[in-house]
Amino acid sequence: MKSADKQNDLLNGLIVREQEPLNLEMPFSTLSGFTTPNESFYVRCHFPIPEIAAADWRLKVEGEVEAPFELGYDDLLQMEARTVPATLECAGNNRIFLEQKVKGVQWELGAVGNASWTGVPLSALLARAKVKPGAIEVILEGADEGEIANPPRPAGKIRFARSIPLSKAQDDVLLAYEMNGEKLSATHGFPVRAIVPGWYAMASIKWLGRIIATSKPFAGYYQSIDYSYWERTSGELPTLRPLAEQQLKAEIARPENGAAVPASATVKVHGAAWGGAAEIAKVEISADDGRTWSAAQLLGEPVKDAWRLWEYDWRTPATPGPQTLMARATDSRGHTQSPARNADHGTYMISHVLPIRVEVR
Amino acid sequence: MKSADKQNDLLNGLIVREQEPLNLEMPFSTLSGFTTPNESFYVRCHFPIPEIAAADWRLKVEGEVEAPFELGYDDLLQMEARTVPATLECAGNNRIFLEQKVKGVQWELGAVGNASWTGVPLSALLARAKVKPGAIEVILEGADEGEIANPPRPAGKIRFARSIPLSKAQDDVLLAYEMNGEKLSATHGFPVRAIVPGWYAMASIKWLGRIIATSKPFAGYYQSIDYSYWERTSGELPTLRPLAEQQLKAEIARPENGAAVPASATVKVHGAAWGGAAEIAKVEISADDGRTWSAAQLLGEPVKDAWRLWEYDWRTPATPGPQTLMARATDSRGHTQSPARNADHGTYMISHVLPIRVEVR
Repeated sequence: MKSADKQNDLLNGLIVREQEPLNLEMPFSTLSGFTTPNESFYVRCHFPIPEIAAADWRLKVEGEVEAPFELGYDDLLQMEARTVPATLECAGNNRIFLEQKVKGVQWELGAVGNASWTGVPLSALLARAKVKPGAIEVILEGADEGEIANPPRPAGKIRFARSIPLSKAQDDVLLAYEMNGEKLSATHGFPVRAIVPGWYAMASIKWLGRIIATSKPFAGYYQSIDYSYWERTSGELPTLRPLAEQQLKAEIARPENGAAVPASATVKVHGAAWGGAAEIAKVEISADDGRTWSAAQLLGEPVKDAWRLWEYDWRTPATPGPQTLMARATDSRGHTQSPARNADHGTYMISHVLPIRVEVR
Repeated sequence: MKSADKQNDLLNGLIVREQEPLNLEMPFSTLSGFTTPNESFYVRCHFPIPEIAAADWRLKVEGEVEAPFELGYDDLLQMEARTVPATLECAGNNRIFLEQKVKGVQWELGAVGNASWTGVPLSALLARAKVKPGAIEVILEGADEGEIANPPRPAGKIRFARSIPLSKAQDDVLLAYEMNGEKLSATHGFPVRAIVPGWYAMASIKWLGRIIATSKPFAGYYQSIDYSYWERTSGELPTLRPLAEQQLKAEIARPENGAAVPASATVKVHGAAWGGAAEIAKVEISADDGRTWSAAQLLGEPVKDAWRLWEYDWRTPATPGPQTLMARATDSRGHTQSPARNADHGTYMISHVLPIRVEVR
């Protein structure tokens, strides 16, 4: 968002998945480095984008706190700030790969990006508000709102909101007002966006307006009917859980899906890997439908809550024809991406190994 | 279910709301006394009715228990039994009255009945299994199963299941094998149906097969996506809650909706009232769209967890024309039925005052 020519910036180079609400995807083949430029960062909206003037913005801190308060934009800017990297991924990223088609924005590979976020730790505001001993969660509410079309739905307009455990809220959640050193754009949540590191990005509430400590588990629309999945716990019975942590995943950026590559050549395969509760330990590539795997080279150094770029020199076959490339990640605790889709995850958490089709010519 | 002519018994006198799965309603105008005869009792099914032979039936008690076990039908019959009355009401009863039409079985007034249930207290089985200190809920699972059609849905077939707080499970839940002194019919859950007094009947699991103590809150399909409602708690934000306790309600049985009554006559208005956490203290009738209310006479004595019958002598007007009758209940804690529908309750908990239209001739 550098110029006043907002319309062009918004669409320039980004795939328009939906106009209203605005949903834009980065073509993942344009992955250019550790930091995703702001103008290339995917945009996910649920409702019309709230246009909020900095001077009008108020953030309320309330609920199960001893000292509820509110503050303005300048108040926040005067507090001690931190800058942290965080990879945000939409929980529906890769949805286009699901064999059984599902509803929802048909993201391919680029509903993910990595940025450096500057703002105030949520813990500082919670400390000031003095959270009561009974509180267990913190609800973050955005200013974006609308009516849900299909039941089960609450009556009237609702605002986008999400809760996180109090322990997470007091740990590493940031109330960000800068993205890669620039003021947030309206599309990315101006004036303030919460950044919940390591979680799918639906938790990183944009246009933040209210912080509510609560002593009861919150089961808002966007963590029950939507943005949830089925877990098999007690007696293998499916139980609904809110989406939370990003799942371990490697994605191939180049060659892109459908690309042509020369025969008998060395082709650089580029990509990124992220997610999981531990560091990326290994990324492997298979060009034979998963029968054999070869280690890719991890680039740079591991950065907490951020993706790891990788590359691999692929010696293409001499014979022309279709080929499938696959990448899979393993983390430092030994977890590896699953080859198969878990249907209990519904339309979200698509983290199995994906096939990228290329044509050897 | 007295004769072998099951098909006729099933449909005889009951309104067929759905054939597959079988959903039958008692015409509420046939309300004949405190106890609903078995053959008049409404039938609610979600899947095909499991045909289970007593000799084949096993009940498993497992999960967060020290001593998991299973038992058979004869084992259960040899345990100390109790007989308790309980009014069961479908959480979607009265759905046909909703002005904004919603999906689901279009029950009018008769998805409710009162019976006397004989069986073994769940507490006895839990005591034998030695529930672990960390357990907080007990899941009851039926043998009825099927696949959910629309997302968000778990993968594959699921069984109908519901959890209740451990405290409720240890209090008054009954594992019933008799209904009004007769063996349960297949339609009512043979061999064994749980009876969860005071709760909407989706909690009273039919064809019971498994009891699972759990240390995590259970959010199964039938207490999250279905059989749930929106509550406004923290900061007025809607949060999804499983349906539980029956809501306070009075229903008019006679004159029935659409009936003709003579002018300048005394017409007996009959009905029942139930629900709420306290005794029915008062039922009132209005024949003038709720402007004035007159007390009906409560019949019999209050019985815990059962409905209270009532009647009222209505002096009909001299002038022919349409009239609306309304009944409203008040409990001993002073709660009165709301005149207006709460849209956050979705397709369930329809407990506002309903208009019964009659024609004075």
